[in-house]
Amino acid sequence: MRVDLAAIVGVGLIGGSLAGAWREAGFAGRIVGVEPDGEAARVALERGLVDDIVDAVPADADIVAICAPSDLVAGEVTKLKDHSGVCFDVGSVKGPIVEALENGPGGLPERFVPAHPIAGAEHSGPAFADASLFQGAITVLTPTDATSETAVELVTAAWAAAGTTVAMLEPADHDEMLAVTSHLPHLLAFAFMQQVDRSQFEFTGGGFRDFTRIAGANPELWWRILRMNRDAVLAASDAFSANLAVLTEALAGDDAEMGIEALENAAEKRGRYPT
Amino acid sequence: MRVDLAAIVGVGLIGGSLAGAWREAGFAGRIVGVEPDGEAARVALERGLVDDIVDAVPADADIVAICAPSDLVAGEVTKLKDHSGVCFDVGSVKGPIVEALENGPGGLPERFVPAHPIAGAEHSGPAFADASLFQGAITVLTPTDATSETAVELVTAAWAAAGTTVAMLEPADHDEMLAVTSHLPHLLAFAFMQQVDRSQFEFTGGGFRDFTRIAGANPELWWRILRMNRDAVLAASDAFSANLAVLTEALAGDDAEMGIEALENAAEKRGRYPT
Repeated sequence: MRVDLAAIVGVGLIGGSLAGAWREAGFAGRIVGVEPDGEAARVALERGLVDDIVDAVPADADIVAICAPSDLVAGEVTKLKDHSGVCFDVGSVKGPIVEALENGPGGLPERFVPAHPIAGAEHSGPAFADASLFQGAITVLTPTDATSETAVELVTAAWAAAGTTVAMLEPADHDEMLAVTSHLPHLLAFAFMQQVDRSQFEFTGGGFRDFTRIAGANPELWWRILRMNRDAVLAASDAFSANLAVLTEALAGDDAEMGIEALENAAEKRGRYPT
Repeated sequence: MRVDLAAIVGVGLIGGSLAGAWREAGFAGRIVGVEPDGEAARVALERGLVDDIVDAVPADADIVAICAPSDLVAGEVTKLKDHSGVCFDVGSVKGPIVEALENGPGGLPERFVPAHPIAGAEHSGPAFADASLFQGAITVLTPTDATSETAVELVTAAWAAAGTTVAMLEPADHDEMLAVTSHLPHLLAFAFMQQVDRSQFEFTGGGFRDFTRIAGANPELWWRILRMNRDAVLAASDAFSANLAVLTEALAGDDAEMGIEALENAAEKRGRYPT
């Protein structure tokens, strides 16, 4: 399937990076952006991420990337219910988007492929867009029985062009896993920073810097993500607190065997993380 | 004060890096290591970190770096109670070392300067020693009224030569601060890794990688650190759990105002962290 015109709804960090990645991969068609924020639109144009900023997705767009916060995706897809192009989103939560569409006025379109590129940065906006942001990352697609295979193939090719490998998961499996691997770490880092005083920054090293990096992420955006995946995030947080209690009890009771066993389990596992 | 002979007790990551840093800074005297582990001794010699491995600190050593785990430092200092050289340690916990010496057989020697270079890595041993490990880091010294000013001056110069800036704190203030800025993040990262399954590694990005890096630290060493600073670490952990509860309650009750305020507090603070 040939793509002559790609539309990106929301030319921020992710949308801008995707446009840049497609360009670097040699995409020769037109890329237009839908971006109500005037400053973001200006930066995206100035940086050459998009060829044009338009008011709405053109009727002849072959592919539409909806790079909006997760809780706005279903609404954007519904706006396009009479459109013919393949579309996908980039949200960190998948189940609620699929459910909202299934229960919504336009239904779950067969041309819509729920997608989540597992990449990001603590900065927002097209000024930080980076054509190499997705290089080596994985993009999870969560198609349902209703999703067209042709649409899945096109979206797979679009994400491969951006430098990612593509994996398929059930929406709920994706959300439960991401609650642990991404949403919970953000919640913990945000919680941890509450008790740090700026006067202590001087007395920190690389461990603190890395551990807290994600606490600098966009608060509005992250509240939306946490809220959309609430049940899975709260379950993950409960599991974390139980594991923390094991460690603090071992510490309080000077139970070296139990404490070191837990630390070894963590360190051994982390040692196998591909760096 | 001129240093002709430096002794390093424990030529691991920290001791080896310190020796390397002194060499790179142009130190022209001899550096000998006391290292009972044969393999570590061999690597330290082979890499040229030390000129020689000796069985005990030579009587004419001008400066002695005790690079042993925090809970062994007081014992090593006591062994040197009749020695004339200035000595310092590198432990992450300072109060219990000072107290153990004050209450111990040799007393708190005026030649001993409690020190903590805030730098490290998740690897151990002289194979990972890095002459630039301390560049730009801060070293906290926690001298007491009993500590000689000459000793403080020499240790300050020794850490400046290794590339660090030096700050002075009370031992208890150091331990309370490090409980928050270093020990708690390690505890949280260790606890978090318990609930991660290796099959999920594939679905992680840079946020996960950075957040969990310190969970790969040496379990035995870290249990010793956490245990030595137990009260401050448990207090910091309680404060963390209270802040996490505020966030999870906001999430469970869909209280966006409270939730976003907490996230903004964290993100704003982290945004001021010097990178």
